[in-house]
Amino acid sequence: MLLVSDIGEQGLLQRLQRFCPADLIGDDAALLTVPAGQQLVVTTDVLVDGVHFSDRTTPPHAVGWRAAAANLSDLAAMGATPIGLTIGLGLPQTATVEWVEQVYRGLSDCLAPHQAAIVGGDLVKSPVPTLSITALGMAKPEQVIRRAAAQVGWAIVSTGSHGGSRAGLELLLKPELGQELSTGDRQALIQLHQYPQPRLDVLPHLFAAVAEPIAGMDSSDGLADAVLQLCRASGVGAQIERSRIPMPPAFQRWQRPNSQSHPAPLDWALDWALYGGEDFQLVLGLPLAAAAKFIERIGGGAAMIGVTTADPAVWLVDSSGVIPPQELHLDQGFQHF
Amino acid sequence: MLLVSDIGEQGLLQRLQRFCPADLIGDDAALLTVPAGQQLVVTTDVLVDGVHFSDRTTPPHAVGWRAAAANLSDLAAMGATPIGLTIGLGLPQTATVEWVEQVYRGLSDCLAPHQAAIVGGDLVKSPVPTLSITALGMAKPEQVIRRAAAQVGWAIVSTGSHGGSRAGLELLLKPELGQELSTGDRQALIQLHQYPQPRLDVLPHLFAAVAEPIAGMDSSDGLADAVLQLCRASGVGAQIERSRIPMPPAFQRWQRPNSQSHPAPLDWALDWALYGGEDFQLVLGLPLAAAAKFIERIGGGAAMIGVTTADPAVWLVDSSGVIPPQELHLDQGFQHF
Repeated sequence: MLLVSDIGEQGLLQRLQRFCPADLIGDDAALLTVPAGQQLVVTTDVLVDGVHFSDRTTPPHAVGWRAAAANLSDLAAMGATPIGLTIGLGLPQTATVEWVEQVYRGLSDCLAPHQAAIVGGDLVKSPVPTLSITALGMAKPEQVIRRAAAQVGWAIVSTGSHGGSRAGLELLLKPELGQELSTGDRQALIQLHQYPQPRLDVLPHLFAAVAEPIAGMDSSDGLADAVLQLCRASGVGAQIERSRIPMPPAFQRWQRPNSQSHPAPLDWALDWALYGGEDFQLVLGLPLAAAAKFIERIGGGAAMIGVTTADPAVWLVDSSGVIPPQELHLDQGFQHF
Repeated sequence: MLLVSDIGEQGLLQRLQRFCPADLIGDDAALLTVPAGQQLVVTTDVLVDGVHFSDRTTPPHAVGWRAAAANLSDLAAMGATPIGLTIGLGLPQTATVEWVEQVYRGLSDCLAPHQAAIVGGDLVKSPVPTLSITALGMAKPEQVIRRAAAQVGWAIVSTGSHGGSRAGLELLLKPELGQELSTGDRQALIQLHQYPQPRLDVLPHLFAAVAEPIAGMDSSDGLADAVLQLCRASGVGAQIERSRIPMPPAFQRWQRPNSQSHPAPLDWALDWALYGGEDFQLVLGLPLAAAAKFIERIGGGAAMIGVTTADPAVWLVDSSGVIPPQELHLDQGFQHF
């Protein structure tokens, strides 16, 4: 097994430069063009081995893919088109060259359909494998999506299903779970965890369907967090209808007993959908008619999950009246420390 | 001592947002403007505790300063004006809030004179404190400095002295060294290590003095590395005159015996100047007349240290004829693995 220490920094750099456009290599920094009339959009994510990924659940190709996808999702959440990203890679000397190349291949494979490239980086020694990614995008000022733009009486829209990434992670960590699922269902959920799709594809439909300034963010920290952050930034509240939250079809065929860690009637599926995170959908605030038009255009698992309210609280409601309303709070979400 | 785990991610974010412009906070990404006619310049650096800095030699304020300075130096090496930088910060839960705030203060203090700001970031849990910085700048296409632009018969110019950063580090690691130095000399060398100045200040003088495309890079990995990389990228060689390499004045008052680790006649001062690194000067290739004009304009420790040659080798020469020429090679420089 060829180790990073066998070929040294220069040897590794030479191999990794194959993943970068030739004209960007060789100077102290990369030169890029932001077209006139567009704003630069910049976002940063750091992923640490043992904290954000592990060999148990994420092969190196998926580590690279997920890192790129998380950053492209942040760009999508701003309404931006990707330009490229930089990678700061910290590696122990015992890392294998194969591992590093697979990470870069995963990054490249995720970027390629979006005409974005790896435009620069840094390679350093670190006791813990660490990926630091900064993604650069561009957006027309009038199309920038912001958290604070939602108004009272608007629809809250999810561009797709929630809970699948967390379900896939559970299946990877505890293979004894979900024995009643078909191989196809299991693979579909694991795919949602390892190879999430940043929702850049919905942007043209969004701009075509909506004339007003668009409110939105991505659901990287969970659907509940996204709704709560959007509402807080916009100074509104919301009523989210439990039955309208889109979840992966496999959930209907999974006979898991309810979790004991949350008081009933929050079942495991709703728990994962609200708090699992890393589904990388967009959660948008849109005028009602525009929302309907947008959902019709994109189809798939997209759904209107609720409406914004003047009351600043965010409620999870059951319109059939069986389950009493529950208020959602930010501190139920994922905190990094 | 308040720990990061005491106040959590949201608490820490709130404290750190004081260091960022208010209009950039709260969305998934930062929005910036690159003026029409300018290109975007992007550079990334990762710094790991125990590899690139340590409490023994670098208080947290200096950790932040040096991290910002290294990135601003990369921008200067491209002829670019800074816009801002993003910070990905990996922290153990046992990190103190004071340490993190001091790092941010150091970053801010280094950025402030250059009208650049912290424009975004990410805060994650990591067993090893890690700083990942991506700096964004802008440059007019006709003023971009590139490694590959040097021509035969041009001057090689250093914008200032070399070896001081390494000398300061030695004094911090081995306080018994340099007893014959005055307190002022010691402090000056330690300052060169802890608070290097990115040479953005020389750019207006450079553009005023030189009409041709400018060749250059920074000397973050040592003066020898900079000369060798510049020559290799430009397809030229060089003769560097030993006596013309500018070094800190304190070196003349330091009675250190020659190092045993290099064959004579490479003495310790020349060794540090060539291979010490992190002096963050610019090493430029300029037509002779333009070089003279530029050096006169900026003064200080700037010097013409040699000339480029058609022979692709890089030689260290002694024009007094006492010491035989020595050829410099890339593998003598610093490698990260």
